[in-house]
Parts: sequence; structure tokens; C-alpha cells
Amino acid sequence: MSEQPKKVKTGGLAGITAGKSAICTCGTGHGLNYRGYDIYDLAKNCEFEEVAHLLLIGHLPNKAELKEFKASLMSARHLSPVMRETLKLIPKDAHPMDMMRTGCSMLGCLESEKQELPKHFPDQLRVGIRLLGIFPSILLFWHHWHEDGRELDTSSNQDSIAGYFLEKLHNKEPKKLWVDAMNVSLILYAEHEFNASTFTSRVITATLSDIFSAISGAIGALRGPLHGGANEAAMELISQYKSPDEAETGLRQKLANKELVMGFGHRVYTTHDPRNVVIKEWSKKLAEDVGDSVLFPVSERIEKIMWDEKKLFPNLDFYSASAYHFMGIKTEYFTPIFIMSRITGWLAHIFEQRADNKLIRPSSEYTGPENQAFVPIEKR
Amino acid sequence: MSEQPKKVKTGGLAGITAGKSAICTCGTGHGLNYRGYDIYDLAKNCEFEEVAHLLLIGHLPNKAELKEFKASLMSARHLSPVMRETLKLIPKDAHPMDMMRTGCSMLGCLESEKQELPKHFPDQLRVGIRLLGIFPSILLFWHHWHEDGRELDTSSNQDSIAGYFLEKLHNKEPKKLWVDAMNVSLILYAEHEFNASTFTSRVITATLSDIFSAISGAIGALRGPLHGGANEAAMELISQYKSPDEAETGLRQKLANKELVMGFGHRVYTTHDPRNVVIKEWSKKLAEDVGDSVLFPVSERIEKIMWDEKKLFPNLDFYSASAYHFMGIKTEYFTPIFIMSRITGWLAHIFEQRADNKLIRPSSEYTGPENQAFVPIEKR
Ligand SMILES: CC(C)(COP(=O)(O)OP(=O)(O)OC[C@H]1O[C@@H](n2cnc3c(N)ncnc32)[C@H](O)[C@@H]1OP(=O)(O)O)[C@@H](O)C(=O)NCCC(=O)NCCS
Ligand SMILES: CC(C)(COP(=O)(O)OP(=O)(O)OC[C@H]1O[C@@H](n2cnc3c(N)ncnc32)[C@H](O)[C@@H]1OP(=O)(O)O)[C@@H](O)C(=O)NCCC(=O)NCCS
Repeated sequence: MSEQPKKVKTGGLAGITAGKSAICTCGTGHGLNYRGYDIYDLAKNCEFEEVAHLLLIGHLPNKAELKEFKASLMSARHLSPVMRETLKLIPKDAHPMDMMRTGCSMLGCLESEKQELPKHFPDQLRVGIRLLGIFPSILLFWHHWHEDGRELDTSSNQDSIAGYFLEKLHNKEPKKLWVDAMNVSLILYAEHEFNASTFTSRVITATLSDIFSAISGAIGALRGPLHGGANEAAMELISQYKSPDEAETGLRQKLANKELVMGFGHRVYTTHDPRNVVIKEWSKKLAEDVGDSVLFPVSERIEKIMWDEKKLFPNLDFYSASAYHFMGIKTEYFTPIFIMSRITGWLAHIFEQRADNKLIRPSSEYTGPENQAFVPIEKR
Repeated sequence: MSEQPKKVKTGGLAGITAGKSAICTCGTGHGLNYRGYDIYDLAKNCEFEEVAHLLLIGHLPNKAELKEFKASLMSARHLSPVMRETLKLIPKDAHPMDMMRTGCSMLGCLESEKQELPKHFPDQLRVGIRLLGIFPSILLFWHHWHEDGRELDTSSNQDSIAGYFLEKLHNKEPKKLWVDAMNVSLILYAEHEFNASTFTSRVITATLSDIFSAISGAIGALRGPLHGGANEAAMELISQYKSPDEAETGLRQKLANKELVMGFGHRVYTTHDPRNVVIKEWSKKLAEDVGDSVLFPVSERIEKIMWDEKKLFPNLDFYSASAYHFMGIKTEYFTPIFIMSRITGWLAHIFEQRADNKLIRPSSEYTGPENQAFVPIEKR
């Protein structure tokens, strides 16, 4: 593949520096690093909880620290009776992202963050760990309540988020391959600089609001198909086709119609998404494991045509779609899983914003009418 | 008062143009205008619903249009059984802004917006009117459930939001003076360009997410004391003092301690907030009406000292605090009332963002460590 960059963008704050941050580099020339660590090292060698510790606490944990951190996450999985009642009230046909946003917001009513404004946030780590621990329980409680009419039992011996999620989703001990794949996926999704949902959480935080507000807003931003929702849209795309040739015909048609192809392109990356090689490799392993001979080849063909025709490359969302599908996960849960991971990046940014806060409040260029003469209602 | 500007700001996107907008001008030289109409004309001559129509639909309504618009708002007041159950689950001691955010988010689960992505939003006006109509009901249902153990009856002959809110809050026909004052307050709070909550709603909208997500996020941003929460903080400030002299002593102490004084200062305005003269006049009328001889004089003294000492001027939140207090409104409901009004500006910006959308995704300046050598957990 030649490395021809897409054309430079304007608008939407593209290329505008909105603040300083010591959490992540992404973009051509930098590669992707979390707190200076190369994403390839992290994805290859770490558990997700180590990366979560890096993002929330600031350094990679040693064994004792990791053990303690995992124990705190395990004890943050429980759901109170009021939370259970709330989740039961959310209909089966609701959008799972709306359900997650509501669960998060309700938790803020029940276990609000204590703040000593304007500068002290003694409760923020407790709230962060609670959210990181509880999101899989929220999703799977709601899932099982509507699927099989039973209340989720949040007790489990799985000490990782990946293992807990897969065990509770499928009601059985998860395969190691799947836990490993989920771990890698959670690591890749954890953090990505000033992406739209993280930026949302910083704008909210900068008014000195609380963490539940910032995370509810971030979930709302992640829901959109130009952001986190792209992994579900990518699944809808690839599952339309029965063979690579069919995909090629269909895709060429979409491109001729100037349709957006979900799971491709990026605001910051111009030639490739470094996370793609990793998730693609895992998607391939999972495809082999389940004996897939359609989805993965279809995905590869779409990748090839998008590059040949548009010089557009798959982002993380594209091969995440098939990877999750091979693990038996419903398409509508792909973006909620993104929450379970990105919550770590959101929290790191919230903590950082608070440590040196300034209201985030830009201006707009006015393009409307000037000096409208007021006419009383009787004369309109 | 001399018109000495505050020093120029940097950071927090201050002065950065984040997009085009035809909805509002604010700032020195422009005055405050909604779609080109001077805020003084609107505040003096309009009902809030006329201004809401201007913001949502694009023009000031004639009598027939206003009648129809008000009727649609009245029929958007009802609360479904599931919404009632949800509100009952939110504890009495929850932060009312958390409750409002949760109510909004739950409504999104129950009455989600239909979208035809990426460009068609056939359902947006229905959702907008529903939110504008329902917010007073959400607040007052929750209020009465916990205060007097009864379910709010949302039927009412009041055809204005101001009248409905005051009638349902106090369980009696509201005085005309109060309805008029509330109307003016809602008009003044309705819209304010790219303020933090509106900007939040645009960032969320730009991922092509839904309106409930954008508004839940905006509520979260408004909650912060540097933004909407300032009206409650201003009330806490003024109610500490029993006389203007006591206020003067207390305030000088705060300034010596370099404390922020809530309800003063603004990102965009540098010499005065044009909304202040209007709300101050109404606060004065309401003070006379209730025979207040403390809060209003205390407020005026604080205003004088802030200008003399810091060249800082009251923003809309400062005199809104006493005005609301004189109408018998609990301090914790001040920011929820702000939602009931600003929802109109949020919606106008959401509709505008969608009409010419571009993902809002800035960059950050990286200040963290580079090239951290990865050390496996056994060796940490
Ligand atoms: C991610 C994304 C929003 C970045 O957007 P952006 O920086 O604002 O760039 P633009 O949307 O202006 O794209 C620039 C050009 O490339 C085209 N383009 C970008 N992504 C495309 C895609 N996935 N499919 C087809 N065309 C695409 C645009 O249509 C535009 O063409 P034009 O200049 O002829 O109008 C965009 O690439 C996209 O919509 N991708 C699909 C959704 C997705 O996968 N999101 C997840 C991101 S991790
Ligand atoms: C509105 C506000 C957030 C704007 O903030 P901003 O544009 O980022 O400006 P800054 O906070 O950097 O203020 C500039 C200087 O004025 C001071 N200042 C601003 N508002 C102040 C206030 N209300 N009380 C005391 N000092 C204030 C700041 O401390 C700062 O001083 P410094 O340069 O010596 O540090 C700020 O004025 C504020 O915090 N006001 C109080 C909260 C409030 O009323 N919000 C409602 C706004 S409608």
C-alpha cells in the first residue's frame, strides 16, 4: 500500500489544539502511546487491568498493585436494588447505549461524587473504579432480564473484566482465546487523546461538574456512528454480503453513491490506524477458531477496495466488528463494550482536566441576520 | 462605572472560533441578540414561548402559530407510568440536576428519536417539543413525590411554561407578577451562543448521536458551578449575610483569600452582561413585592465591591438568584429552571449542527513522557 495522505481537513476543530495533555499521543509520526508506552507493547504483554491502572493511577502496576486494583474492581461489580429496578424499567427494545447512559446517570443519583470545589476531588478515584467495575454488570443485568427473565448474579471468580463479561454473557467459563482477544480489544479501545467523547467529558468537567455527568455525556457522544457507533455500523456492512465478490460489487455501488463506509477513515490518522494490524490479527485467529469462511474474507476485500479506490484505511472499529461477532456477541453490544474500555481514558482525562482546570468555552462565527426590527405579535 | 476590560484570556478555547452559527451574537460591540433580535426587545415584549418558537422554528410566531405551538407544549407535559416509577426511584437527597439528567436519559429509552442517518432527522422537532414540555413536570413530579408523597397531576389550564411551573410548584394560581418575572427569566436564559453546555450538545450531536444524548450531556455541563450552577452558588453567597455592611466585610475577606465569587465574570463579556440590567430590575420589583430589605441591598453592595475591587460585573446568574428566591423557589431548583429555558438554545444548536455536520474533534498538545521502555509485570 502506498502511503498517500488524505487531504487536510478544516472545520470541526480539526487540527486545533484544545489543551495540553500527558496521556496519549496518536497520529502519524507519533504512533499510538498511552503515557509514553507503545500500544503494541501494551497489547502484546498486558492485561487490560494493567492498562487501566496506567491510565487511572499513572503507572503500570507491579503484581501487588495489580492484585489490589483487580480486587477493588471486583468489589465494584454489584448492583443495588434501586439500580436493578431502574434497569428493569428500561424496555427491551431500547438502544443499549441509551440504557448504559441511563444506568450511569442513575448511579450518579444513588452514589454521587463528593467534591470540595473548586480544587479538591477526594472521591474521584472511588467513583472511577465503581464505574469501571459496574458497566459490565449493568449491560448484562439488563440483557438477561429481558432475554431470560432472570436477575444477574454478579458474583464470579473471574478476576478480569474480559473474563467476567464473557462468563456472564454466555453463562459459562469463557475460553482462554476469547478472554485474550477481549483483553486486547479493551486495551486498544482504552484511550485515544481528544476524540469526541473524551473531549465531551473534558468540556463537561471544565464547568466543575461531577464525574457521572461527564461520563453520561461521553456515552452520548460515543453512541454516534461517526464515533463509537461505527463498530456496529461496520458489522451491519460486512454481514450484508455472502462472499468477497458480492461485497466488492456492493461496496463499489456504495462508493458510487458517495455513501460513508463505516469503520474507515479517521480525523487524526492519515495513512493507517496502528490499532488495525493488532485487531485484524485477532479477528483472523477468532475466524479460524470458529471456522468462518465469509466474514473475514469479506472484510479483507472491503479493506482492499477502500484503499484502492479511496485511499481510506480501516480504523479500529472495522475488524473489531468481526472479532466480537466471532465471540458470540450481539451487534448492539459492540458500542457498550467500547464504554467498558474507554471509561479508563475518559477518567484519565477528567482527572487531568481537574488538576489544571479552565472553562472550555469557544466562540462562534456569526452568520445570521443583523438588527432585526422587532414586530409585536399583533402585527406579525 | 468605568468600562475597563478584564485581561485577555488564553486556554479553554477562549476566543477560538469553533464553528459558524446563525443563532446568537453575544459579546462587547454586538450586544445580545437571538437570531438578530435584540434581547431587550424580546424580554420586554415577548412571552417565553414566542422566543422558544424563534429559536426552534426560526421565526417569531404570529398569534395562530403561537397558539398551536403552546398547545403542542401543553400536550408534551404528561409523564408515562414508567417515567413516574423512575422518578420515584431517585432518592430525595439526590442532586436535582442528576435527577433531571436521569429523567432526560430515561425518556430517551422510552421515546427514542427516529433518525435516517446520516442526513435526515424527521423526528427532531417532536423530540424537542417533548423535552421543552416535560422538564417542568419531571422536576415537580419528583419534588412533590418526596415533599408531600403525592403524584403530580400534570393537567393544568396554564398555557405557559412559566405559569405551569409556578402553579404546580406552589399548588395555586400564580400571581401575575411572578409569571411575568419567570417569563423574562426564561427568555434571558434561553440562548447564549457556544457556552459550555451548548458546545457540549454540539460535540455530541456531531458524532450523529441522538437528541437525548446531546441534552443529557448538556445538563451535565450546566450542572457545574462555573456554568449554570453559578445561580445556586450566588444564592448561597448572598444568603450568608444579614446586612450590606456584613456582606462587604465578608466579601473583602473572600477576595483577600482569592476565592471565586459566583455569579460574577464571564468568558465573553468583558465589561458587563447585558442581561443583568433586566434581571436586576425584576429582582428589585420582586423584592418590593415581598417586602425584602436584606437580600436585594446585600446583592447591590456585593455588585459595587466586585466592580470597585476587581472590575468584575454580575452575570445573569447573580440577580436571578434573589429573583427566584423571592418567588419562593428552593435554591436547588435554580439550575433545573435554567434547563427548562436553555433547552431551547440547545435544540436550536443541535438542529443547526445537523444541517451542516462535521465531527468536532480537536487535538491536544502532548506534554507527557516519550518512549517509555516497557517492563514486564514480573520485573516492575
Ligand atoms: C472518522 C471520520 C468522521 C473523520 O471525519 P473527518 O476528519 O471530518 O473527515 P471527513 O468526513 O471530512 O472526510 C474527508 C473526505 O473523506 C471522505 N471519507 C472519510 N471517511 C470516509 C468513509 N468512511 N467512507 C467514505 N468516505 C469517507 C469524506 O466523504 C470526505 O470526502 P469529501 O472531501 O469528498 O467530502 C470519517 O472518516 C468517517 O465518517 N468515517 C466513518 C465513521 C467511522 O468509522 N468512525 C469511527 C472513527 S474511529
Ligand atoms: C465565568 C468564568 C468561568 C469565566 O472564566 P474564564 O474566562 O476562564 O476567566 P478566568 O477564570 O481565567 O478569570 C480571569 C481572572 O479573573 C478572575 N475572576 C474571574 N471571575 C471571577 C470571579 N467570579 N470571582 C473572582 N475572581 C474572578 C480569575 O480568578 C482570574 O484571575 P487571575 O488571572 O488573577 O487568575 C469566571 O468568570 C468564573 O469562574 N465566574 C464565577 C462562576 C460564574 O458566575 N459562572 C457563570 C457564568 S455565566
